[in-house]
Amino acid sequence: MAELTDSQVNQQVELLSRGCEALYTPDELAKRLKEASKTGKQLRVKFGMDPTAPDIHLGHTVQLKQVRKFQDLGHRAILIIGDFTARIGDPSGTDKTRPILDEQQIAENAKTYIAQAGKVIDTSPEKLEISHNSDWLCELNLTEMLKLASQITVARMMERDSFEKRFKNDQPIGVHEFLYPLIQAYDSVKVEADVELGGTDQTYNFLAARDIQRAYGQPAQIVMTFPLLVGLDGTQKMSKSKGNYIGITDEPNDMFGKVMSIPDDLMENYFTLLTDMPAEKIKELTDASKTHPRQAKVELGKIIVSRYHSPAAGDEAAAEFDRVFASKQAPTDMPVIKVAETSINIIELVTLAGFAKSKSEARRLITQNAVSINDEKITDIDAVVAMETGQVLRVGKRRFGKITL
Amino acid sequence: MAELTDSQVNQQVELLSRGCEALYTPDELAKRLKEASKTGKQLRVKFGMDPTAPDIHLGHTVQLKQVRKFQDLGHRAILIIGDFTARIGDPSGTDKTRPILDEQQIAENAKTYIAQAGKVIDTSPEKLEISHNSDWLCELNLTEMLKLASQITVARMMERDSFEKRFKNDQPIGVHEFLYPLIQAYDSVKVEADVELGGTDQTYNFLAARDIQRAYGQPAQIVMTFPLLVGLDGTQKMSKSKGNYIGITDEPNDMFGKVMSIPDDLMENYFTLLTDMPAEKIKELTDASKTHPRQAKVELGKIIVSRYHSPAAGDEAAAEFDRVFASKQAPTDMPVIKVAETSINIIELVTLAGFAKSKSEARRLITQNAVSINDEKITDIDAVVAMETGQVLRVGKRRFGKITL
Repeated sequence: MAELTDSQVNQQVELLSRGCEALYTPDELAKRLKEASKTGKQLRVKFGMDPTAPDIHLGHTVQLKQVRKFQDLGHRAILIIGDFTARIGDPSGTDKTRPILDEQQIAENAKTYIAQAGKVIDTSPEKLEISHNSDWLCELNLTEMLKLASQITVARMMERDSFEKRFKNDQPIGVHEFLYPLIQAYDSVKVEADVELGGTDQTYNFLAARDIQRAYGQPAQIVMTFPLLVGLDGTQKMSKSKGNYIGITDEPNDMFGKVMSIPDDLMENYFTLLTDMPAEKIKELTDASKTHPRQAKVELGKIIVSRYHSPAAGDEAAAEFDRVFASKQAPTDMPVIKVAETSINIIELVTLAGFAKSKSEARRLITQNAVSINDEKITDIDAVVAMETGQVLRVGKRRFGKITL
Repeated sequence: MAELTDSQVNQQVELLSRGCEALYTPDELAKRLKEASKTGKQLRVKFGMDPTAPDIHLGHTVQLKQVRKFQDLGHRAILIIGDFTARIGDPSGTDKTRPILDEQQIAENAKTYIAQAGKVIDTSPEKLEISHNSDWLCELNLTEMLKLASQITVARMMERDSFEKRFKNDQPIGVHEFLYPLIQAYDSVKVEADVELGGTDQTYNFLAARDIQRAYGQPAQIVMTFPLLVGLDGTQKMSKSKGNYIGITDEPNDMFGKVMSIPDDLMENYFTLLTDMPAEKIKELTDASKTHPRQAKVELGKIIVSRYHSPAAGDEAAAEFDRVFASKQAPTDMPVIKVAETSINIIELVTLAGFAKSKSEARRLITQNAVSINDEKITDIDAVVAMETGQVLRVGKRRFGKITL
């Protein structure tokens, strides 16, 4: 890294803050970038992974893309695997949905995570350092914990949005929950983070880390937070548990189809957070008087599929989607539904095909007019249909299967 | 210990709860005493000492007397030397008045404390177990700390009187202050306390320990709190730092004189908290229509001096006090004030004698008519007085010195 001119520094700050919800502070970032270019010392850019859920979806890529930008500018990403709490679980024992993982599981999850993240970030050792916070948290003693805790007041802790609400609504907050932000902040001290990146829901914790670092005689980390990507349902944060996500390992046709199902009004958000397209181009694509929303989604779908598969796969997925939906044809490649009898009740057929998880879901789909055989709607849940090899069962817009006797 | 009858148990509960401000709960105490008498297992009665201030005054003896009662009934006192925090000091670094002690200092303070406490409690090993909480707190790790902290909610912590007030008044509370009650509670778990004794200011911490013990699968300790003894000033809690105390190592005449200076309306409080006198007798002694307040104080003074010195010393101190104050005579034994000149300014003389800490204090005493030489008041701060060997300088009621040229 050669020493940057002021104008180069400003360009980098602009590049890095693109899509950022908040940056504390642009001046500090500029100063730190300038210094790094002078000394040749890489900035240490901290980000975390949840070791209980290794599968990466597009929501995660918003910050991973940002990590990549720092790497491309010569800096070093520091991945914190939060294995300490994953190993001990929630000490209050109230959160039964959160599994306690053993070391081996965590190692496997981390491997999966890094393999997937490698589609976005540079995973070479000089650009990515991997730390397990159990390395220092297991031996953190009470003296250190008291020192840490003494750096923050209860009033400050209460400013955290979620705590304030819960306190006012008489919802219990365990005292241990006050310790988590401190522990996370201690991670920043241990890895000597220059920058920390994450979702806006982490703002409080990241800012707390600035105070803690100062108390430990370190310069405060620069904090960059990113908006949470809204899921396919158009209302909730994209998350695996809500089923409203596009996984980065999804098959091309599935990935493309999901992009096409995004509500129109989210397109600007998706283009901004997921692509490097210039703002003007995004404006054009999301202005309905200039571009048909469907066309904008096709563009986005191609970009996403290209990135996680290949440009050719992007084009193919677009063509396939067009063929199936625009021309209402069945796809070229369909799963086979093996049927034993020459006639079958429609509920049983839909369940057998795996297009409904239960008979009650099958029943619902049928009554909602979502089920057809050879383009003929079946709306009677008691219907017994004759089976022939080659018939096409369709459920909803995108699920097709070819009957074989 | 033979198995107690219900009526014996009730007698013990009554004896033990005498002078108690609060007892959580009498039923539990009865049950625990009964059980102990059945199994022959001593109850473990926890109490703490502050390793930064080993000198014991009458305020401390209120609970020590209670500890002694348990010992006399066959149980075991568990003294917790809180050396952990004394060694690390206040981690926030804001409390500069609190010294950080090293192991040797703490050991010396503990020795002094036990030597003094031995005037009230039984210090034989089968009746007194001594624990240093650094033994377990130094190695308390984060996993354990989180488990501890998860047992109590922030709302519960805020119920603590002092926290609630400070939070409402925007006075900072460090998050580490939330950890202290937990740490103290953990001490109870470690020593498996059956009972904990202390001042009313400890009520919150002691009750928190009950929850924590249950979380660790132990029966909750019985909590006994005692009113804080008011100091000689009649308003503030007796404490060394406020100078309003009677130390249990004070000389007999000093001790007796201090008792005589207690405000009349505190006598009932002192008799109740410091003696085992039946309530009726106390009523008689503190009813001004039956006993002159001065006489009540003489009684109390004799009891206190007898206890910490000897009955003879009690009688002598009473006689001496009578001689000096009632008959306004100088005491038999006075410090010598060595004067170099045959005449001296009165301010300088009072300062030289050590009866005022500064010239301004000496000036104040003179203008308040508190200074005399050979019973002649000196009220002029500019007075230059002739000095002769044998003259008596008196300041206030109780400070005398014999001039020597």
